[in-house]
Amino acid sequence: MSEATRVAVIGIGAGDPGHVTVAAVEALNRADVFFFLDKADAAIELSELRQAILDVHVPGKGYRLVRTPDPERLRTEAGYPEAVEDWRKRRADVCERMIAENLRPGETGAFLVWGDPSLYDSIISVVDDIRARGALAFEVEVLPGISSVSALAARCRTTLNQVGGAVQVTTGRRLAQGWPEGVDDVVVMLDARDAYLELADDPDLHIHWGAYVGTRDEVVISGPLAEVAERIRDTRAAARREKGWIMDTYLLRRARG
Amino acid sequence: MSEATRVAVIGIGAGDPGHVTVAAVEALNRADVFFFLDKADAAIELSELRQAILDVHVPGKGYRLVRTPDPERLRTEAGYPEAVEDWRKRRADVCERMIAENLRPGETGAFLVWGDPSLYDSIISVVDDIRARGALAFEVEVLPGISSVSALAARCRTTLNQVGGAVQVTTGRRLAQGWPEGVDDVVVMLDARDAYLELADDPDLHIHWGAYVGTRDEVVISGPLAEVAERIRDTRAAARREKGWIMDTYLLRRARG
Ligand SMILES: C[S@@+](CC[C@H](N)C(=O)[O-])C[C@H]1O[C@@H](n2cnc3c(N)ncnc32)[C@H](O)[C@@H]1O
Ligand SMILES: C[S@@+](CC[C@H](N)C(=O)[O-])C[C@H]1O[C@@H](n2cnc3c(N)ncnc32)[C@H](O)[C@@H]1O
Repeated sequence: MSEATRVAVIGIGAGDPGHVTVAAVEALNRADVFFFLDKADAAIELSELRQAILDVHVPGKGYRLVRTPDPERLRTEAGYPEAVEDWRKRRADVCERMIAENLRPGETGAFLVWGDPSLYDSIISVVDDIRARGALAFEVEVLPGISSVSALAARCRTTLNQVGGAVQVTTGRRLAQGWPEGVDDVVVMLDARDAYLELADDPDLHIHWGAYVGTRDEVVISGPLAEVAERIRDTRAAARREKGWIMDTYLLRRARG
Repeated sequence: MSEATRVAVIGIGAGDPGHVTVAAVEALNRADVFFFLDKADAAIELSELRQAILDVHVPGKGYRLVRTPDPERLRTEAGYPEAVEDWRKRRADVCERMIAENLRPGETGAFLVWGDPSLYDSIISVVDDIRARGALAFEVEVLPGISSVSALAARCRTTLNQVGGAVQVTTGRRLAQGWPEGVDDVVVMLDARDAYLELADDPDLHIHWGAYVGTRDEVVISGPLAEVAERIRDTRAAARREKGWIMDTYLLRRARG
């Protein structure tokens, strides 16, 4: 009986090797080949972090590693969804080729996803697209991971929601359009513009902000937004200057009337 | 040098022992005593699931276990936040007593939290309340876990957000008040009322629904809401009848114009 050819999408947490799940460790050790998409901006360090997680959890190193540059996204303000769709297609092309050229029948290939694959990550849809094209046949398995959101909340010893309340997870781009309706708690990811600054004169807002959470470079700042906003802005700017890239997430909480 | 007295709040995932993180496994093995709050409704099975996770990950069993009934929440429609506040106070009383009577100086006590401690769980605030009272001194550590939301998304091989979009995590009670503003993706937890049924004539909605995700009893139904809503309602009713309790989560997705 021949084994199925598989692609595993493995959530590996957002930086702390201890945040990898037991099931993910097992899946990492079952993989014959890992596919790495190297991002241009944060290329070296992010790949090193991913490699460090592999080194900790797959000490045997009985795997092959295939790396390819992640197609660049066009950073245009207008036509954002279209730009992302185009990027997604180019990523599917690149990934389809990586799989076709490197995954033998009956083998398991794996994509390591930063954090949890369910949040602001396109690998699941890329893999869906490849299957839909029909040229390659494989089974897909997704393993959840600790998102940077959960890691931040744990680090700040806070919940995301207030009692019985809702929480919205959104982007810096969207927050810049105003506080979301109907929620008192907002988690912001992918903020390239310091969107929280616009809200800094609201005395009812509290922030838990964390950059590089779970890594050696972790910085966390919590407090009333009005008091800490500038410190966060300066810390972000300094980190960007030093490292050339940043990954940070924050929870904005509005005290309930 | 004497070690600090500690309380660890450990996210253990929502049922699948494989979803426990490596850091949580280590924390489980460092704990001297576990504090279990036994819920009345689902008492036996949920405690068995928690015990099974301990058995898998702490085979040495070199720990003490202290159990106490979780104070019942008053299930009144009106005054919901107040009822929860009162419940929280009573839980703090019970937990403070458990800690005072069972945790010796320098030891580590642990609360196992279902899923991730950041979502609809009160242990973090209970522990904060106990520290604020000032009678007991201990350090607190929170370990993130795979939430039922991440587990559901992985099981359904879906993301929670659409490209660049926002996602709101909310309760059945809130969803019953109408579709939240400004989001196309809504995750619903704690739904005691089949709130999705009210939306079942909206042809643009898709649902990923899962009950007991990650456990032996897992059931998952995905599809256009209009087509699967009644099947979900019947499956929920049957599960409730058979087991006496249910834990289910769903993602409602509105196709983007
Ligand atoms: C493309 S998204 C991927 C999110 C990821 N799938 C997750 O579950 O965390 C990248 C964004 O995740 C957040 N992020 C990722 N890793 C982080 C970390 N270690 N600390 C803080 N934020 C992080 C930042 O908001 C960043 O802009
Ligand atoms: C009190 S909340 C706790 C949530 C938990 N902290 C988490 O991260 O999943 C209980 C709710 O979680 C969801 N839930 C917990 N475990 C689940 C599971 N195994 N499958 C589906 N939903 C689950 C249900 O919505 C349930 O009503």
